[in-house]
Amino acid sequence: MSESAPDTNSSDAADAPTRPFRAIVDADAIQMAVELVDALFDECHLRLEAEGLRMAGVDPATVASVELTLGRAAFESYETTGVHTGVDLSRLGDVVQMADSGQLVEFDLASETRTLEIHIDGLEYTLALLDPETIRRPPDSPSGGFDFAGEVVADADDFDRAVRAADMVSNHLALGIDDDEDAFYVEATGDTDDVSLALPAEDLADLTTGEAHSLFSLDYLTAIDRAMPTDAEIRLRLGIEQPATIAYEFADGAGSVEYVVAPRISSH
Amino acid sequence: MSESAPDTNSSDAADAPTRPFRAIVDADAIQMAVELVDALFDECHLRLEAEGLRMAGVDPATVASVELTLGRAAFESYETTGVHTGVDLSRLGDVVQMADSGQLVEFDLASETRTLEIHIDGLEYTLALLDPETIRRPPDSPSGGFDFAGEVVADADDFDRAVRAADMVSNHLALGIDDDEDAFYVEATGDTDDVSLALPAEDLADLTTGEAHSLFSLDYLTAIDRAMPTDAEIRLRLGIEQPATIAYEFADGAGSVEYVVAPRISSH
Amino acid sequence: MSESAPDTNSSDAADAPTRPFRAIVDADAIQMAVELVDALFDECHLRLEAEGLRMAGVDPATVASVELTLGRAAFESYETTGVHTGVDLSRLGDVVQMADSGQLVEFDLASETRTLEIHIDGLEYTLALLDPETIRRPPDSPSGGFDFAGEVVADADDFDRAVRAADMVSNHLALGIDDDEDAFYVEATGDTDDVSLALPAEDLADLTTGEAHSLFSLDYLTAIDRAMPTDAEIRLRLGIEQPATIAYEFADGAGSVEYVVAPRISSH
Repeated sequence: MSESAPDTNSSDAADAPTRPFRAIVDADAIQMAVELVDALFDECHLRLEAEGLRMAGVDPATVASVELTLGRAAFESYETTGVHTGVDLSRLGDVVQMADSGQLVEFDLASETRTLEIHIDGLEYTLALLDPETIRRPPDSPSGGFDFAGEVVADADDFDRAVRAADMVSNHLALGIDDDEDAFYVEATGDTDDVSLALPAEDLADLTTGEAHSLFSLDYLTAIDRAMPTDAEIRLRLGIEQPATIAYEFADGAGSVEYVVAPRISSH
Repeated sequence: MSESAPDTNSSDAADAPTRPFRAIVDADAIQMAVELVDALFDECHLRLEAEGLRMAGVDPATVASVELTLGRAAFESYETTGVHTGVDLSRLGDVVQMADSGQLVEFDLASETRTLEIHIDGLEYTLALLDPETIRRPPDSPSGGFDFAGEVVADADDFDRAVRAADMVSNHLALGIDDDEDAFYVEATGDTDDVSLALPAEDLADLTTGEAHSLFSLDYLTAIDRAMPTDAEIRLRLGIEQPATIAYEFADGAGSVEYVVAPRISSH
Repeated sequence: MSESAPDTNSSDAADAPTRPFRAIVDADAIQMAVELVDALFDECHLRLEAEGLRMAGVDPATVASVELTLGRAAFESYETTGVHTGVDLSRLGDVVQMADSGQLVEFDLASETRTLEIHIDGLEYTLALLDPETIRRPPDSPSGGFDFAGEVVADADDFDRAVRAADMVSNHLALGIDDDEDAFYVEATGDTDDVSLALPAEDLADLTTGEAHSLFSLDYLTAIDRAMPTDAEIRLRLGIEQPATIAYEFADGAGSVEYVVAPRISSH
């Protein structure tokens, strides 16, 4: 929760002199933002703050969480008094998908009724918002942060190929860094077939070595992979039997998303 | 039924000196014609008259009816002695869909066997026709006609956006004209979300005002909307708790279709 | 089985001085080869011989068999000591489909472990091979060969149109040659509708007449038709109540496939 922002569900919001949130945004940017969060769950926290729009949530099994920011720079116009609410992602996604590429989507939040008005070229959609108290909240990171051993910057395209191939043979895959070989690797071992992808430092945009190896469920990685734009440059932070973070920018750098995925117990 | 045309199912037809119907038509025109009627039901009346081909039918619940004409101008060649028969639209649709865009489709009706021969570049499909007596007939309009209050000429694209958005929130929608605001509107009220589209006169090709408001089932409007070409200019006639008519031209003006949809009981 | 080639499942292979099979091939050629065999069954014999790669199999009901060759000319590089093994076509197909058009796919067969390594731009997929003794073998042709009466060379496009139309009305179709009319024909008779396509010699690339007529199950012809490239020139050999062969080249002539389909008992 953003401490500095008044809650729309509190009585303060109703006294605010202006509309709590009005903004106009390019359809492609908001469609992408919703899709990246919708990949993992149906409902999320929506925070409308001075710096931009933020969405956050965690899946029902608390294996994967997302934090997404779409900064003011992505908006044609943006004004807010600060809002914390909740949103149904599949309904919001359906609505913003009605806009054609390049069209503008206009938001207007009427706090009194807890509804978000969405305007697309004459069409007005009134979306009921959700009480944020009813939506799972991403767990706090450990006080000292995760113990990441290394960091990889790779093409989404390479990650995509490895995840799709792994999904043919198994339901989990290992992400790791081979410190000796100076390489990032993806491995999946199935009942009959195996998949591996090793990318040495020279095939990566960046590599901070440090031995790393953790096993993840393909359910989550496949969902994250499908939503990922193919031209993204993704930043992975990895450790030994640690969560992985997968982060990248979108909307010409105005948006950023970070997924945190918990590891499976591995016998490696 | 066209009174002046002999029925192929009568003995007269068998004595006719020429084939009752021979015609050659561009694949795109006949594909569109069949699709526009097939949107609502599986079987329809088929009348082959001097002015052109006509299809008509009504859905099993008698909520929506269609009258479609594909005039002689749409045909490369067209000769008929006048025929009234019935046709299975999904089978006819499958056959004409075999032709590529720009190909010619040739029809030859052999009345003796109640079958329609369809030729597409060497392929011959023999389609069994249906006894028109077994096919529902669109109800007659009331003697004085419907009591339409106003008429709207709009882009199919706007109608499409409103119907698709309404379908996200409800299973019925209201079509109306706001006499004071000089605007055509579409409204749908769902359990949590609402949709509305208001098009003032300046955003319409034409508007004849007169207060109008009726509620319709989205099942029918969605089916009509899906078949509609996106570049059509549609003419809607509306009243107060009255049926709506939705009409437009296709095949470069050689074809025309009119749907009549009965209203739902509204508590508005 | 290729008599001159050592079997990878025998102890000889393990003693071979070089890898039993290493090859690099254009993605499009191998994707097409796998798809043409996968159309009819899931597992097939895979022979890696001096002349090229061969795949062969027969469907569970022993109605349809395939023999496919992808010659050395289709490969960027190709070396083999001769191998006879078995392969799961849907898994092999999924892997080679990961390559983009124009990419190279590299194969490396490690006989010791009966696995085929497949490399696509950094990705390594280890595919478990199958014991060829467990895979159905296409039946031998009768000693004198089939009694074909005539041969037709036609466009895949015409065959495709006839098969798709026949599939709308029936579950079997007749392929034949009308000796008097000098024409190849396809016919299907349904409960209500009929389909026929007659192609006279002048509409065919070649026709060797001889009265022919046999009835075939559409299940098999539809599967063969769907996998067929639309620009292929297909060679059909037909007889009276005899199997039909359907053969064509692919991969710019470096590949060839021949299907043999047994006839149904016909009352014609």
